Amino acid sequence: MFESAELGHRVDKRSYDKRVPVLRYELLEAQLQIQAKSEFPVIVLLCGEDGSGRGDIVNLLLEWMDPRHVRVHPSGLPTPGEKERPPMWRFWRALPPKGKTGMFFGGLYDQAIEDRVYGRTGRAELARQLVEIVRFERMLVDEGALVIKVWLHLTKKVQRRRFEKLESSPATSWRVTKRDWQHHRRYQRFREVSEGALHETSTPEAPWIVVEASDDRFRNLTIGETLRDAMRARLDRGRREVPARAPPPRPAAIDGRNVLEELDLSKSVSQAQYDKRLPLLQGRLNALARHKRFKDIAVVIAFEGNDAAGKGGTIRRVTRALDARYYDVVPIAAPTEEERAQPYLWRFWRHIPKLGHFALFDRSWYGRVLVERVEGLAAEADWTRAYREIVDFEDSLSRSRIVVLKFWLSISQEEQLARFRAREKTPFKRFKITPDDWRNRKKWPAYERAVCDMVDRTSTAVAPWHLIEANDKKWARIRVLETIGDSIENALRR
Amino acid sequence: MFESAELGHRVDKRSYDKRVPVLRYELLEAQLQIQAKSEFPVIVLLCGEDGSGRGDIVNLLLEWMDPRHVRVHPSGLPTPGEKERPPMWRFWRALPPKGKTGMFFGGLYDQAIEDRVYGRTGRAELARQLVEIVRFERMLVDEGALVIKVWLHLTKKVQRRRFEKLESSPATSWRVTKRDWQHHRRYQRFREVSEGALHETSTPEAPWIVVEASDDRFRNLTIGETLRDAMRARLDRGRREVPARAPPPRPAAIDGRNVLEELDLSKSVSQAQYDKRLPLLQGRLNALARHKRFKDIAVVIAFEGNDAAGKGGTIRRVTRALDARYYDVVPIAAPTEEERAQPYLWRFWRHIPKLGHFALFDRSWYGRVLVERVEGLAAEADWTRAYREIVDFEDSLSRSRIVVLKFWLSISQEEQLARFRAREKTPFKRFKITPDDWRNRKKWPAYERAVCDMVDRTSTAVAPWHLIEANDKKWARIRVLETIGDSIENALRR
Repeated sequence: MFESAELGHRVDKRSYDKRVPVLRYELLEAQLQIQAKSEFPVIVLLCGEDGSGRGDIVNLLLEWMDPRHVRVHPSGLPTPGEKERPPMWRFWRALPPKGKTGMFFGGLYDQAIEDRVYGRTGRAELARQLVEIVRFERMLVDEGALVIKVWLHLTKKVQRRRFEKLESSPATSWRVTKRDWQHHRRYQRFREVSEGALHETSTPEAPWIVVEASDDRFRNLTIGETLRDAMRARLDRGRREVPARAPPPRPAAIDGRNVLEELDLSKSVSQAQYDKRLPLLQGRLNALARHKRFKDIAVVIAFEGNDAAGKGGTIRRVTRALDARYYDVVPIAAPTEEERAQPYLWRFWRHIPKLGHFALFDRSWYGRVLVERVEGLAAEADWTRAYREIVDFEDSLSRSRIVVLKFWLSISQEEQLARFRAREKTPFKRFKITPDDWRNRKKWPAYERAVCDMVDRTSTAVAPWHLIEANDKKWARIRVLETIGDSIENALRR
Repeated sequence: MFESAELGHRVDKRSYDKRVPVLRYELLEAQLQIQAKSEFPVIVLLCGEDGSGRGDIVNLLLEWMDPRHVRVHPSGLPTPGEKERPPMWRFWRALPPKGKTGMFFGGLYDQAIEDRVYGRTGRAELARQLVEIVRFERMLVDEGALVIKVWLHLTKKVQRRRFEKLESSPATSWRVTKRDWQHHRRYQRFREVSEGALHETSTPEAPWIVVEASDDRFRNLTIGETLRDAMRARLDRGRREVPARAPPPRPAAIDGRNVLEELDLSKSVSQAQYDKRLPLLQGRLNALARHKRFKDIAVVIAFEGNDAAGKGGTIRRVTRALDARYYDVVPIAAPTEEERAQPYLWRFWRHIPKLGHFALFDRSWYGRVLVERVEGLAAEADWTRAYREIVDFEDSLSRSRIVVLKFWLSISQEEQLARFRAREKTPFKRFKITPDDWRNRKKWPAYERAVCDMVDRTSTAVAPWHLIEANDKKWARIRVLETIGDSIENALRR
């Protein structure tokens, strides 16, 4: 991987001074075109050995490009807010919207490599982290992003010379830390681990570009030209659509039976039982949320269901048991402009709760494989890959001790009709029924199939689907509260 | 994953008898169209719990389809020839050519899942195996294959009933083995491990299709229709080209320097030294090949280099040291018709040596990123993904104790010209020089760039590139023999 980056590449001052003005003009032009079209974001990842000048490069690029459309994300230690969320969270938060450029130092790689070098993680854990990164990057490219990964490389000898030179002047000596020398002593090990990681993550969609960093002029010109070429190539490609790679999931079962039809929707609970059980379950949930170990976990709940299945009412029965400081209800409607400029899952990642908190999603990330699939709002290639991405997303959450709960509130077609009619008749409920609702109703079989595929492909051991019989609202509320209580109890026990 | 496949799906005899004739006709028609076009192979993977009737399904499909274009590959224990090669080898060997269908029982999944259930592998090793499988399947789809993965599912109760029923009749009792009951007792663990593996490998390009197998008619119809639909959808898609997902590797270094230019091609060895060293090195190699532990390893050597760099002569100096029973020289020219009907790496996998053997490739799998890239014989999307696939390929080999050696014999443009002219003048060497050689020569810079990218992207810790100065043929031969000897010595020590 580093063969070509240990040759002592150099560029003399004269040709540098001649080439830079042209390059700056071209870079700026490419950047402005990308900004004008706003069809895709540019994600630049700068990694490499200590002393390779990643900071200098970023400063230079900010000078060469229009800095208003570039955001820089230093790595560094996570902030308190970041520490309480899954490691991926900060990267999701920092993704640039379409048309803009984000520059990341080290990304997820720095930490993964360092942890391995110092033996804080084993070979298997590093491999898992790299697979997670590869999938994340593939998702970004699938979403249209231009991903440019640059590795700045130095030999051990040059690294030492760099450090010594910086230390020799009082103006720069602060830039060399004890940690830098510590890393330097482990140079060979860093090199081995990095080389392995680079091979493992050099994918067709986001290959590494290794640049020798011993000569500043060579480094600067090479990175500038690489960026320019990559941006131009991406602009030329335009919006070419990627075809779906496989047929959609298997058709509905030939005997017409499915997990939804199997539900016994006649299940119900009497008013008396309900009045007795509900406060008990709410009290139990409240106690769990105040448990001394609850601050080490968090809870994410997705509520999905047929129109008029009673999601809102159920959510209110849950939140009534909770302290308002510790929960958020996130209603999911059509994405905002800001959200449309980001990868699909971005608008859910932004609402991931801190430890000790709840987030209740009224509709959720499953929109892509439900309404967007059925209404043709997402291309087949996009919703078919969403299953995998959603499973990865929920895996990330649960690995960070977030309890993920998913409810499908299921009602019959007849019950829905009755509820729609009741809404139309009740003046203060009329806002709850729209022409869309009647239209969706006509696509009942298509929605049913989408729900069954969703359950099959995203029900995992860590985040199973709970299908709730909801023709009787009271029954549904009791079942949901019971399930939430059981799951949190389980999580606290672990 | 199994939610929809535990509902007790059934199809009654009457509708079965009505639907089967239509289905058979449609299946056959789709199959014959695929055969007529011969643009892609169909790979059907049948996995699932014991007793789910995989064998019955295959027999039935052979009856329903044209069996001349279908090959069935039972899993079972590896043959002696297979045992001495990497686990992937048998799957490569068994891949159907374009236009044909291959049906695989269990594939790589059966073994991986069973090993994990019985604790023969840890979580990390299973994860690694699954990543390998996912990449393998992605490669197949990238190469155009239609990959259909069917999982036949049974609940524990139904499995037990099946076994008992089979055992109750002397005609079928032999079909239930002690191992089946052993697995049955671990049903829950099998289910857990399988479900995790299915989620991990349900990719957008090759998703799993889970089919309930408790009712034969339901199972048969579902699988038949799934196959029919998938084949039709793939036929409709046609040859739509997949665009490259990222720009090609970074441009040549802006200072014009590269790993090839750094070589000191003036290096040479005197005739006297050569005459003394050569037999010593050959003797050492011969002794190594007869070492008692050599039977536990194998050696694969790829010889690449400029035209007229002396690959043939070098290979002969190596083989002279070896016993003819234990080596193969594999000259790589344009692919045969049979090879063109297969994924790119297929024609190299077929020549992978048994343990205790050598395979010397005169030109190699690097053709895709050298001549095919430069001459535009491979699409950009194809040669850019080849780097990753080649690294995976060599990783597979080295994990199975195969020593992988890669030599680039490098000569200067002037030296090449001199050799070309000499060949033209020497009657018995004239066959070695063709108009192609002169044409390739004009593309020297493009080839040089391709070589540098290749070295950067495929030189790994387990299979590094050895760049050999070859203006002096004697020097090159000595260096190659030394490197082979050192590498084998290293491998025997481990």
